[in-house]
Amino acid sequence: MLTDARKAAIQASFAAQGMMRTLGAEILEIASGRVVIAAPIRAEVSQQQGFAHAALAFALGDSAAGYAALSLMPEGADVLTVEMKINLIAPAAGERMIATGEVVKAGRRVTVVRAEVVAEAAEGRRAAALLQGTMITV
Amino acid sequence: MLTDARKAAIQASFAAQGMMRTLGAEILEIASGRVVIAAPIRAEVSQQQGFAHAALAFALGDSAAGYAALSLMPEGADVLTVEMKINLIAPAAGERMIATGEVVKAGRRVTVVRAEVVAEAAEGRRAAALLQGTMITV
Amino acid sequence: MLTDARKAAIQASFAAQGMMRTLGAEILEIASGRVVIAAPIRAEVSQQQGFAHAALAFALGDSAAGYAALSLMPEGADVLTVEMKINLIAPAAGERMIATGEVVKAGRRVTVVRAEVVAEAAEGRRAAALLQGTMITV
Amino acid sequence: MLTDARKAAIQASFAAQGMMRTLGAEILEIASGRVVIAAPIRAEVSQQQGFAHAALAFALGDSAAGYAALSLMPEGADVLTVEMKINLIAPAAGERMIATGEVVKAGRRVTVVRAEVVAEAAEGRRAAALLQGTMITV
Repeated sequence: MLTDARKAAIQASFAAQGMMRTLGAEILEIASGRVVIAAPIRAEVSQQQGFAHAALAFALGDSAAGYAALSLMPEGADVLTVEMKINLIAPAAGERMIATGEVVKAGRRVTVVRAEVVAEAAEGRRAAALLQGTMITV
Repeated sequence: MLTDARKAAIQASFAAQGMMRTLGAEILEIASGRVVIAAPIRAEVSQQQGFAHAALAFALGDSAAGYAALSLMPEGADVLTVEMKINLIAPAAGERMIATGEVVKAGRRVTVVRAEVVAEAAEGRRAAALLQGTMITV
Repeated sequence: MLTDARKAAIQASFAAQGMMRTLGAEILEIASGRVVIAAPIRAEVSQQQGFAHAALAFALGDSAAGYAALSLMPEGADVLTVEMKINLIAPAAGERMIATGEVVKAGRRVTVVRAEVVAEAAEGRRAAALLQGTMITV
Repeated sequence: MLTDARKAAIQASFAAQGMMRTLGAEILEIASGRVVIAAPIRAEVSQQQGFAHAALAFALGDSAAGYAALSLMPEGADVLTVEMKINLIAPAAGERMIATGEVVKAGRRVTVVRAEVVAEAAEGRRAAALLQGTMITV
C-alpha cells in the first residue's frame, strides 16, 4: 500500500510537469507499481489526419510508467526515463486517451516498465498504443 | 532533389498537426530523406525538474523522421508511425530543441528511420535523444 | 481454434530454421495468437559470465512471437520480423529458457506482438526478458 | 587509445561466451568505443527461408555494442545489456555477417550504444540490421 505522503509526492511531481498541464493531463489512479493518467483528445494534440498524435500516447504512457516506477522507489528519489519504445496499435480518436503504467521489474538500479494506452469514445475503449521501457532512480 | 510541390505538401501536412502548433514547432529544412524540425524549450513543455520533457524530444524526432520518410514516398501518400524507440541521452535545457530525421531504408511497405535530437543553448548544442523506428505508407 | 494443418505448417516452418536446431529449441504449444518455445540453457549459449546469452532470449522470444503472428495470418502466408525490442529483466540461469509469444494486435499489414521469456530452474521459474515488436506478412 | 591489456580483457571476455563460439563469431577490430564482430552465414543459423536468422544479427550487434561500451568503462568492470532494439532492414544472405558496435554516449551509470549489421556477399555488402540500446556497468 502506498502511503498518502507518497501519493502526494507523485501528485506534486506531476503538477510540476509543464508538459502534463499543456496536454490537460490528470492522474486518475496511483497504486504500488501502477499509475493511470488521462488527457482529452483535442485539436491541439492532433496529427495531420485529425487523430491523436503519437506524441500524446507517448507522453501519457511514459509519465504513467515513470510514476509507476517512482511509486516503488525509495522516498525522496526521483525518476528519469532511460529509454522507451512505443508501438502504435490503431489511430486514436474519441473523448480522451488513458494510459496505464505498470512496473515489470523494479531493480536496484533500473526499473523495467510498460504502459497500455487506450482511446475512450462514446462507443467504448480501443487499444491505441503499447509502451515498454526503462526508468532509472536519480 | 525534392520538388517544390513535395516540399509544399510536407509543409501543409505539418501545418495540419495541432500538436506541432501546440509545441511551437517549425520545419527548418526539408530534403530528400532528411527533415529538420525545431521547437522552443519552454516551461509549457517541461518535466518535473524543469528540463524539456521526453515527450518533446519524442514529438520532434518522430515528426522529423516521419516527414523524412514521406519525402521519399509516392506523391499523394501519407505516413504513419508503426513504432518508435527513443533513448534519452542527457537532460535537455537551453533555448530550443532540434530534431534531424533521416531515412535509413525506404522499403516498398515499411521505411526504417532514425532521428537525432539536440538541445541548443547559448554555449552550444548538446545531444539530447536518439530515435529509431518504423514508418508505413498509408 | 487452429486447424491441424495450420499447426503442421508452423511446425514445418520451425523445423526449417537452422538457428532453432542449433539452439536445441522445440515448440511446446501452438494456439491461435499464442506460441510457446523452449530451449536448454547450455554452455554453448552462454554469455561471458555463464548466464544464458541475451541472444538466446531474443531468438526464442522473436520466434515465439513470430509464429504467434503467423497463426493468425492467411493460409500460405509467411512472416518476417520488422523490428523487435527486448528488455533483459534478470540474468538467466537454470535448466531451460521458455518464451511465450502473443499477438497484441493482428493488422492487415503489420502485427504487433509481445513475448515473455522465463528461465526455469529446479527452484522454479524466473522472469528473464520481455519483448515487444512488429511482424509483417510476406 | 586502448591499451593492449584492455584489448586482451575484451578478447578474453569474448572467448568466454559460448554463444559466440557456437555462432563461429570472431572479433575483427577493437577500438575506443568501437568494436567489430563477424560470423559466417551458415545453414546452422538460418531462418525458415534460408536467410540469416534475426537472432544472428541481434547476437553480433548486441555483442559488438556491448564490447564497444566495455572499452570505455573502468578497468575491471563488466557490461550487461539492459535493453536492445533491432530493426531488420533486409533479408541477409551471403558469406558472413559483420556487426559494428559504437558508443553514442558513455554515462556514469548507463551507456547508450548502437550497431550496424551488414551481410557480406561476393557482390558486396548490404545493410541487414540496425540496433540501438542501453548497456550498464556491473
